[in-house]
Order: sequence, then structure tokens, then C-alpha cells
Amino acid sequence: MRTWGMIATWRMAIEGVTLGSEMLKNGEKCQDVLEKAVMFVEDYPFYKSVGYGGLPNEECEVELDAAFMDGKTLSIGAVASIKDFKNPISIARKLSADRYNIFLVGAGAESYAHKNGFVRQNMLTERARKTWELRVKEIKEKNLSPYDGHDTVCMIAIDQEKDMAVATSTSGLFMKKKGRVGDSPVSGSGFYVDNEIGGAAATGLGEDIMKGCLSYEVVQRMKKGETPQEAAQGAVDEFSKELIKRRGKAGEISIVALNNKGDWGIGTNVEFTFCAATPTEQPKVYIAKLVDGKVNIEITSEEYMRAYKEKIQREI
Amino acid sequence: MRTWGMIATWRMAIEGVTLGSEMLKNGEKCQDVLEKAVMFVEDYPFYKSVGYGGLPNEECEVELDAAFMDGKTLSIGAVASIKDFKNPISIARKLSADRYNIFLVGAGAESYAHKNGFVRQNMLTERARKTWELRVKEIKEKNLSPYDGHDTVCMIAIDQEKDMAVATSTSGLFMKKKGRVGDSPVSGSGFYVDNEIGGAAATGLGEDIMKGCLSYEVVQRMKKGETPQEAAQGAVDEFSKELIKRRGKAGEISIVALNNKGDWGIGTNVEFTFCAATPTEQPKVYIAKLVDGKVNIEITSEEYMRAYKEKIQREI
Repeated sequence: MRTWGMIATWRMAIEGVTLGSEMLKNGEKCQDVLEKAVMFVEDYPFYKSVGYGGLPNEECEVELDAAFMDGKTLSIGAVASIKDFKNPISIARKLSADRYNIFLVGAGAESYAHKNGFVRQNMLTERARKTWELRVKEIKEKNLSPYDGHDTVCMIAIDQEKDMAVATSTSGLFMKKKGRVGDSPVSGSGFYVDNEIGGAAATGLGEDIMKGCLSYEVVQRMKKGETPQEAAQGAVDEFSKELIKRRGKAGEISIVALNNKGDWGIGTNVEFTFCAATPTEQPKVYIAKLVDGKVNIEITSEEYMRAYKEKIQREI
Repeated sequence: MRTWGMIATWRMAIEGVTLGSEMLKNGEKCQDVLEKAVMFVEDYPFYKSVGYGGLPNEECEVELDAAFMDGKTLSIGAVASIKDFKNPISIARKLSADRYNIFLVGAGAESYAHKNGFVRQNMLTERARKTWELRVKEIKEKNLSPYDGHDTVCMIAIDQEKDMAVATSTSGLFMKKKGRVGDSPVSGSGFYVDNEIGGAAATGLGEDIMKGCLSYEVVQRMKKGETPQEAAQGAVDEFSKELIKRRGKAGEISIVALNNKGDWGIGTNVEFTFCAATPTEQPKVYIAKLVDGKVNIEITSEEYMRAYKEKIQREI
């Protein structure tokens, strides 16, 4: 049996991972698998932190970030703060083929996407607008910090030819300032992959993840021989402590990792769901919980999955 | 005698480093030193790749990138693709004080800068416009690749209290696509600093620097005990080989590094000038040349300095 494997952040990735694992099983390339799998998450309106239906910034605009990296060539493509294109991941992938101008932002990214025929779509759903309005009201009434929620979909895959890739897509921090960029399109922080070692990708408070270049750090730990689980949890544990020592607090950080043997692992400093699939493991949603400072990983129950599905579609 | 030190990329940094070294000698803080020193480079109209007088993008707009990082708190602030503000480095520094929204791009960055009272200035000089027009003509006539020149000013400093910081500022790749972001505002690629180890910052083809997270890599090598010179040249040598192996070619990459003892070093795969100053070394411009694959560092001659000054002010 030939190796293949896939891991992705959050419960929202399960349909994409299920689709992707079928493609990998059939011998398709990791690059195509990740683009298709992330597109599914971007297109699904009830996933509120990625693509269509993603939560807007403080001005009620949905600004999207995405990145794509190829582990063989180290090619990277990324967009940030792009509005009203259906699939940011496809734009990022296309940019990764170029030698120059691989990371485009704002109006420039939109101009590029327009000229290259990418599909336009108003990415603000009625549901996201309502959530935004309620949040504005709540912030005012309760005098809250506006920022809440920042779940990026990150996927890493290895195909049967042992090629690897990583992809990220997000609407970023809910209520962010216009033009805010998090870690997701930032090489080494939000993502990194090298065919000769493995890949890693991060979700959580991008502002803190960028302070530790955590995806690159996890890949370097795997290079030294650590398992994906040791590398990811070790990097998150150590860097969270460092943030607390230097700054008094650490934001939420979760990382998925996959090495070039197809073994996966995760690191997190909060409760975190993720999806994984390999030739011997059906696509499943896992939940990682911290128990006495140690991470404990379990398969989610059917009850959990039912409650989640009900929650994301509940009337607002 | 208490330690302090400063290193910066390119000949254009010498006035900033001279000014900065006086401030460091007088016990001023590294953060203030770097902001002032980079502002000098941004303000000087004859430095054609940073701030006022920086070379424009394909649409003849001067889009600027800058970043600031504090080695004690790991705080980062960055802007990218920002137009018509006098000192991007000051905006980046201000952003670094925040917990959220520390990296702003495009219209959002401009809106933030406006609301926070930063000085507006049309950053396109007559000289830069002429250079752009000549380049457009030359590209058309000779059927050239448009991209040429990408010199970022990067400065790293350690002050008498052993605090460290790093700052970068650039107009990016000449003739870049609108919205293109290079490595300069990207944590870990364009810059990184940690008081407990040291700092590094990069200039060259940002698209390739981002593929190797080279500033973070250099800091990690110093953490393992390498000198700044070993760390910077080792990282550039190894990653240039890796790029050639994977992609057939490597872009121009140069890195400056400074550890928390005040020792400096550089790494480069091309001829590269830089400036450094310590309590025992007056501010000087050095030139690094590759001779038989080894880097050879010399102080630039008075003749070189005269020719440079003449060249950057020559009529276009």
C-alpha cells in the first residue's frame, strides 16, 4: 500500500478531507487535492471564518487571506485583504507558479484576480451581516474588546508520489481593522512545507503566531527527527510559555503537522478540533483537549457532530 | 565600556547608522534609534528603493512596505502596499504597540495612518518618475523582464541596556505588480529579533527569501551558538544551493545579523554593501564580495564612496 495522508484544522474541514482522501487514494496530486478541498470549505456558507459566509471586518467588508505552498519547489502564492472573489485559494495557487509578485494584497490582488478571470462573488452572506450587526451591538452595550474568532482552514497533504503541499484560507479575525493581515498568508508563520521533511500550518491569533514563525519552527523540529506530534506540541508549549514570560499572555494557537512519511500530529494551547485521513485511518474529526497541561486527542462522538451541525445552522 | 551595536543593509544606511551610533553611545533606546535612522533613509530623495524617491510599481505608484520588531516583547508592527505617507517605519512602529491588527496593508493601512495623524506626502519624485519612464521604454524596446532592483534598508541595533530591535523599509521590487508584498514586512523572512539571542534582516528577492524564512533561520542558528557571520553566511549558502537544486536558480539574497553581545556578521550570494558601528568600530561602509565561493569583507575606499555619491545624484 502506498503512503498518502492529509490533515486539516477544525471540524469544518471534514467534507474537504473526505473528498481529498478519495482523490489521494486514487493517485491524484496533492496540489489538486488541496485546492479542491479548500474550495469546498470556502464555498460552504455555514463555515463562518473562511470564504463565502466568512465574518466581516469592522466596516462589514469580508476581506480574505489565503496561501498555497508546494513542498517540492518551495513555490509560494498568497493573497491578503482581497474582497469579493469566490475562491482565494485558487488565486493563491495560481500566483505560486510565478517567480515575481507571488504575494498580492488589497486592490492589487483584486486587479490580478480580475485580469486572470477568477470568479467574482459578493462574499458577505445575510447570516454574516446579521452576526456582524449583533456583534456591533454587543460590543457597544457590554463595552467588549471587538475581536473574537479567527479560525483558518489549513490543510496539508502528501500524495502517493510523496509530493507535499499546504494550503490556508480565512476571513481572518472577526471585526478586524480594514487591511489587517494575520499569519495565514505569511510564509513560515501560517504555513510551511518541504517535501524533504514535512509541513505545518497554524490557526489562532495570527498576531502571536507571527511572533514565533511557528510553522517553520515545527518543520525544523521535524527535520531534527521529532515526530509531527512532538514537533507541533513542543513548539506550541514552548512558545506559549515564552509569550507569557515576555508579554503576560499568549493568544490561542493550534498547529497541524504532517511529515513526509505520512505521519500526522498537532499542537495546541486550547481545545481544538481537526480532521485527518491516511490509508489506515478513515477521514475523522478529532478533538484535542488539554488535561493537566497535557494534550489528549479523541475521535469526536456522533453526538458532538450532530450538535455542531445544528449550531452552525441555527437561526441568528 | 558598555556594549552597543548597529548593522544595516547597503551603502544608503551610512548616515542613519552614523546618527544611530551617536544615539546608542549616548544611551538612547534601540527602538528610538532605529526609527530615527530609518526615517533618514526614507526621507533622502536620492535613495531610490526606500521611502521618498523610491521606485514605483508597474502603474507608476510608489507602494511602500515597512516593519518594526522589538526583541524584548517580540512585538511586531508592519505595513505593506501603503501609498503617500512620509514615514512608513513610524506607522509600523506604532502598530507594534497593539495586540491585534499589527500588520495592515493597502487602503486599510492608509486609513489607519490617516486616523493616527501620520504625515501625508506624495512619495513619487520627479527623478523616480523619469526612471520609471525610461524603464518602461527600455523594457518595450529590448523585450526585458521588467523586474530590477529591490534594495531594502534593514537595521538592527542593540542598546546599552541590551535591548534589541530591528526595522525594515522599502519600495519593493521596481516595476512590481500593484499590491505586491515582498519579504520586508513579513516576520521571520524579512526580519526577526529576540533579545535572548540576536536579530537578522534580509534584502534581495523577497519571493525567494520567503521560501526559506531566512531571518528566523539565522536567529535560530545563532541560538545554537553560531556567530552572526557563520549563521548568516551559512544560511544564505545552504538556502541558495537548495533553491538551485529545487528551482534551477536562486535570487539575490543578503542578510545582516547582530547577536546580543553586539557582534555582527553578514551573509550574501552577491556583491553587497552594508554599514556597521560598535564602541570599537566607527560607522563605516563595508563591501562583501564573493571570491571563489567565499565571502570577503572590506571597508569601502574613499574613491568608491565618491563614485557612489556621484552616481545616485547623476542627471537622468
